[in-house]
Amino acid sequence: MERNKRVKREEKRELDLDSFLANGIEKMRASDVRDALKLVEGKKIISFAGGLPDPETFPHKEVKDIIRTLEHSDLSSSFQYGATLGVIELRKELSKLVSKRGIVNVDETNVLVSAGSQEAIYILCFLLLNPGDDIIVETPTYVAALNAMRLREPIFHGIPLREDGMDMKELEKTIKEVEAKGRRIKFIYTIPSSQNPGGITMSMQNRKRLLELAEEHNILIIEDDAYGFLAFDGNAPDAIKSLDKTGRVIYTSTFSKILAPGFRLGWVIASNEVISKMELMKQSVDLHSSTFTQRIALETLRRGVIERNMPRVRKLYKEKRDVMIKSIEEWFPKDVKYSIPDGGMFIFVWLKPEINARDLLKSAVERGVAFVPGSGFYHDDSGKNTMRLNFSKPSVEEIKKGIKILGLLIKEKTN
Amino acid sequence: MERNKRVKREEKRELDLDSFLANGIEKMRASDVRDALKLVEGKKIISFAGGLPDPETFPHKEVKDIIRTLEHSDLSSSFQYGATLGVIELRKELSKLVSKRGIVNVDETNVLVSAGSQEAIYILCFLLLNPGDDIIVETPTYVAALNAMRLREPIFHGIPLREDGMDMKELEKTIKEVEAKGRRIKFIYTIPSSQNPGGITMSMQNRKRLLELAEEHNILIIEDDAYGFLAFDGNAPDAIKSLDKTGRVIYTSTFSKILAPGFRLGWVIASNEVISKMELMKQSVDLHSSTFTQRIALETLRRGVIERNMPRVRKLYKEKRDVMIKSIEEWFPKDVKYSIPDGGMFIFVWLKPEINARDLLKSAVERGVAFVPGSGFYHDDSGKNTMRLNFSKPSVEEIKKGIKILGLLIKEKTN
Repeated sequence: MERNKRVKREEKRELDLDSFLANGIEKMRASDVRDALKLVEGKKIISFAGGLPDPETFPHKEVKDIIRTLEHSDLSSSFQYGATLGVIELRKELSKLVSKRGIVNVDETNVLVSAGSQEAIYILCFLLLNPGDDIIVETPTYVAALNAMRLREPIFHGIPLREDGMDMKELEKTIKEVEAKGRRIKFIYTIPSSQNPGGITMSMQNRKRLLELAEEHNILIIEDDAYGFLAFDGNAPDAIKSLDKTGRVIYTSTFSKILAPGFRLGWVIASNEVISKMELMKQSVDLHSSTFTQRIALETLRRGVIERNMPRVRKLYKEKRDVMIKSIEEWFPKDVKYSIPDGGMFIFVWLKPEINARDLLKSAVERGVAFVPGSGFYHDDSGKNTMRLNFSKPSVEEIKKGIKILGLLIKEKTN
Repeated sequence: MERNKRVKREEKRELDLDSFLANGIEKMRASDVRDALKLVEGKKIISFAGGLPDPETFPHKEVKDIIRTLEHSDLSSSFQYGATLGVIELRKELSKLVSKRGIVNVDETNVLVSAGSQEAIYILCFLLLNPGDDIIVETPTYVAALNAMRLREPIFHGIPLREDGMDMKELEKTIKEVEAKGRRIKFIYTIPSSQNPGGITMSMQNRKRLLELAEEHNILIIEDDAYGFLAFDGNAPDAIKSLDKTGRVIYTSTFSKILAPGFRLGWVIASNEVISKMELMKQSVDLHSSTFTQRIALETLRRGVIERNMPRVRKLYKEKRDVMIKSIEEWFPKDVKYSIPDGGMFIFVWLKPEINARDLLKSAVERGVAFVPGSGFYHDDSGKNTMRLNFSKPSVEEIKKGIKILGLLIKEKTN
């Protein structure tokens, strides 16, 4: 009776979840991209906010055909648990696919299939970083990678982007400054081809210099090649990984831009040693990635679906980029700077320093247009006057209309 | 010239990956289950090792039909990026599905879709645990959950299983002992229905007592209900979550046992506060789970595929359990103890204390039979004389043949 009473009282007490949370959890933050997407959810709005492929590029019919014609035993094994590293036939195909990015002399033992490249980056941060470790990122860089890194509380060092990629002089200076303090850089995270959000492609000369610096100073490189297959002229410079002789470069890429993000499949190319640590970690995170979507991805490679699709995707996105650039030229104030990307899905815009892009977003949404404020892409929350514009998802008409609205709004704010 | 020389020398230097790894990574270990699976890979062997569903239970035709008849717009959105929480229609269906487990008064805001329940458990460990935190697990318990917990370096307290589940007297004693040291238990991890590997179902009385203790001592409960829908008589006791008034119970379950593990889909039912922290974390881990497999899972719920499939699965597994029990009775020495599970996929076996199941496994594999040594399921690596036998995957003939081989081998070792 006495106990029953006590329990009743306890039941009414609200649970104080915060008192259960691990240290540092309160610092977790939502991605600005996801926040911007929430802002527009369910609204009739022209969105330059997401990083979504054009649904026109999804091979609907081909995937239906694959499922229809798949052997019973293959379908069956795609329903079953699978190896943590991924479906072996897919890993073999991927080790061949990356030869298009100049990466040769690898086989399936160098491949791990991940849940998009996001999971690969997350796992690498977990494996490599202690709180307070020094790492190097580009400014700006991919926001969801920054957030994965932040969970490990590293010290960020940002290297600005020039027209041919990361500023190599700044990079060398930063590495030496850190070393002068008796510390070391653990890794450099770079998106060398059609950088997100900067829209910049690193020159081959800089790729070589980057690897040279990494070798001299014993630093790992995480090369995020999400857009390497999407260069509009079909010829992104070879991946940095293609130059790597010592297993210093960990390469990640994804099916999200060349097949379908909904499959949640990416992959890693790395030394056997790195792959085996990642395998062990992935086992605890999610056991393995979907064998079902892996089997479909495998068939799209085998049947040439991706091969045939890529030129279509490039052509479509190049056209949309051109429309967006032309509209920006027509409607944005002349003092606005912007990238002219040679691939990928984004144009990055530098407004006048006095304009805050977060404030601008609110007014823009009221007028029916959304984008992502750029500061989320800076490790130190600088870049408050920048914005990222996606051109892959909106239609040509939406691009024209939306950029006009944005341009007029920016002109208002500048006056 | 001078530099080129230096670089050449550096290139030859082997990369020392260990010097890059975060603290504690060397303690990561492979799951015993996965190790046992590797041992049998490609071999013609009778395997009681995995936790694999019988492929007969996969709804091949129904999934083909779903893809064939899916509206173009639904197929298209299943290729696209999706919300981190999961596809909203699926979350609605799941909030209804769990009423079968007694959980009512929840809606889609209480649901997060995860990559199997593994990812949910991983994320919870990350959110809740600091190194050195005290947690309670059942002995034995699910090995992959133990490994996810180990990444956060907690202090484990094990509670033995009795015939009606966790020993409540031991549980209370342990909680009080920890509190007497001025410490606290963060959470209790339990698999109350058809426990893996113990094969035990917790009585309703014990479920109530467990929640009562958690409320009195302000402890969270992680309820892993992987087998809750697989009770052979169709009536597992209601989930502990069904009794929860304060948001203290975090419930996880999975499509792996009722639909297909290859889809890598599970779900969490919890308070909005817990769900929103998990969402934030999941964003960094993998952005979201496959929208493609989520869409198919949604349709299997809507079209009654799972509803129709479940009785078939239960019947099949009950038959296989009966065959395995009968064979054990016939061939194992009489002093061997074993669970008689009322659901799930596993029988747990306690051999005589002097038998080491890891050694036994080697001899068994030589004779063409595999199982998982039980010690991996113990947080403290005890249980060296135990083994877990899976009956869902092998055929009836394999069960009969394999158990005979195992029984004869055990008798040899006991003599």
